[in-house]
Amino acid sequence: MADITAPAQVSVPAPAAPDFSGWTCPAPLRDLPRIVMGHGGGGALSAELVEHVFAPAFAGPALSGLGDSAHLELGGARMAFSTDSFVVRPLFFPGGSIGDLAVNGTVNDIAMSGARAAYLSCGFILEEGVSVEVVARVAEAMGAAARTAGVEIATGDTKVVESGHGDGIYVNTAGIGLIPDGVDIRPQRAVPGDVVIVSGPIGQHGVAILSVREGLEFGVEIQSDCAALGGLVQTMLDVTRDVHVLRDPTRGGLAASLNEIAAAAGVGVVLQENRVPVPPEVANACAILGLDPMYVANEGKLVAFVPRGEAEAVLAAMRAHPLGAGAAVIGECVEDHPGMVVARTALGGTRVVDLPLGEQLPRIC
Amino acid sequence: MADITAPAQVSVPAPAAPDFSGWTCPAPLRDLPRIVMGHGGGGALSAELVEHVFAPAFAGPALSGLGDSAHLELGGARMAFSTDSFVVRPLFFPGGSIGDLAVNGTVNDIAMSGARAAYLSCGFILEEGVSVEVVARVAEAMGAAARTAGVEIATGDTKVVESGHGDGIYVNTAGIGLIPDGVDIRPQRAVPGDVVIVSGPIGQHGVAILSVREGLEFGVEIQSDCAALGGLVQTMLDVTRDVHVLRDPTRGGLAASLNEIAAAAGVGVVLQENRVPVPPEVANACAILGLDPMYVANEGKLVAFVPRGEAEAVLAAMRAHPLGAGAAVIGECVEDHPGMVVARTALGGTRVVDLPLGEQLPRIC
Repeated sequence: MADITAPAQVSVPAPAAPDFSGWTCPAPLRDLPRIVMGHGGGGALSAELVEHVFAPAFAGPALSGLGDSAHLELGGARMAFSTDSFVVRPLFFPGGSIGDLAVNGTVNDIAMSGARAAYLSCGFILEEGVSVEVVARVAEAMGAAARTAGVEIATGDTKVVESGHGDGIYVNTAGIGLIPDGVDIRPQRAVPGDVVIVSGPIGQHGVAILSVREGLEFGVEIQSDCAALGGLVQTMLDVTRDVHVLRDPTRGGLAASLNEIAAAAGVGVVLQENRVPVPPEVANACAILGLDPMYVANEGKLVAFVPRGEAEAVLAAMRAHPLGAGAAVIGECVEDHPGMVVARTALGGTRVVDLPLGEQLPRIC
Repeated sequence: MADITAPAQVSVPAPAAPDFSGWTCPAPLRDLPRIVMGHGGGGALSAELVEHVFAPAFAGPALSGLGDSAHLELGGARMAFSTDSFVVRPLFFPGGSIGDLAVNGTVNDIAMSGARAAYLSCGFILEEGVSVEVVARVAEAMGAAARTAGVEIATGDTKVVESGHGDGIYVNTAGIGLIPDGVDIRPQRAVPGDVVIVSGPIGQHGVAILSVREGLEFGVEIQSDCAALGGLVQTMLDVTRDVHVLRDPTRGGLAASLNEIAAAAGVGVVLQENRVPVPPEVANACAILGLDPMYVANEGKLVAFVPRGEAEAVLAAMRAHPLGAGAAVIGECVEDHPGMVVARTALGGTRVVDLPLGEQLPRIC
């Protein structure tokens, strides 16, 4: 496990290219006739649904891979536009609620384009019989999170479904924000030589949800890291507008985000496993539960690909921001093994960090 | 019932003001501790939820009464931004599907600001076990509806909930579109003297859903009127940019829309009941079922408040458009009884057309 208090080492030694010549893509994705939980997990099954069902049906020039925020032109302005539905269970958990997630999740998707979310929409699907007080507490959490993030909830809708056809409260948010001039942040821009930075310790959100859902205790209460990252991104852009890629590793965790970037840009990613910051309590919980922290969801962290020459300054700026205090360089982008993420283990070995099939924990956001 | 083939009579005789001096607002809304189906019905209970729960929690300058599209400024452009969730059951019905509704519903909300929807987001909440083929058919319907409406589905998200926590497929869409220069269409702009026009026969969508849901037959199959109204609105704006109010009478029907406009603008509305176009098969079905067509949902109709001097030209332009062929003048806006909608019956009497409490039929969109 990494010591996250250790000083950052920006210079990542160039690794000898590992030999993956015999490696092939995972077996062709299953031809499932029915939706399974994994289709909502942000991994390979989700990607299959987008590739084979949604993308052909919706095909249009702006469709930027469903799940990312789209980059649009409207009235001469460049905008990021994104949506997320939230079905997390329980509705309230250590460190946040479905209301916080619903605001921060969409704010963060937009921030990953370098944009500051300006307006959110909010759609509730309420289950008949849910307490109005619970709805009010969720709405208050959304309002507070929106004020913290500096975004305005501008429009909304409420539907009610019969008891037994929902789970208390589902929330959808969509959001729009302006992309600043000179900023072009998207997965396709990762290039060999880029330094990979994570903004802090990973795995807290997923483990926090699991611990309260299953009534597990791990000695200390693990809080969700749920937070809005627009301010942290602004701090990074103040150092350089040439940030190549930003991604918030939610469903599927850091592993899914890095795999998506590697695939989109046609580059390889090499991680130094022992530099990936994992809080001891998350590592302990994962060890007990048989989870890999690399695959556990976060909601207040980002992973950045920045040019090597800018990495030190960007890292310093991140560390000076409250939401980036635990930022660390965890690896680099390479020409070898395009589309593949490889971790160098503490013992000097290497392992492939695959795209997960589904999510280890469903209903996590 | 009105003969919708009769030539339109634009000149509405100014009625003698009815005496409603003894009339009071409906009893204070119930202090319900739990969500009931009516909270999603677009009537008084929905309004109560917005007023007492969402508006105080979210309060911000752009919050334009949740349920309307919001009018925003972003990057120097004036935009309409709106969202709707769709929980209709069954997923497929005569004349459309949840996919058509999800596109047209949000496109129409935006059109009611005079804007042409440019981009949509799309959030699916799928229930574990639903057939992938059904998901694909819904996605295809959305793609086709989007192409017809000239809008692009630009970004999306999919979540999966366990079997028993959903109802096959729920869809949320949010959309944005530019408001043309010189156009300012909102409920508050209704003024005494405005002529009230409906774009065609009402009640088809709600009755179509009900007939297939309950296995009822009324001699002829009643098809949903589900359609995108952006083109019809453009046709109207080509006549005059000074359209005062547009509204698509969905949940709660024409009655809810007119009440909301009357309340927002502080004006009275007088309808000529026998001029409201109701198709004979809808009237028959409503008579059998004890429904009032004024309260039944539509999804391809609009109601417009236009200055008297422009009404004739606007009506002619609407009638020349395929989606406005059945357009009719149904009443006018008056100074008397502000906030109240009154219908003059065929027999010469008057009745108050109240804001419904909930919706006569749940899960209609």
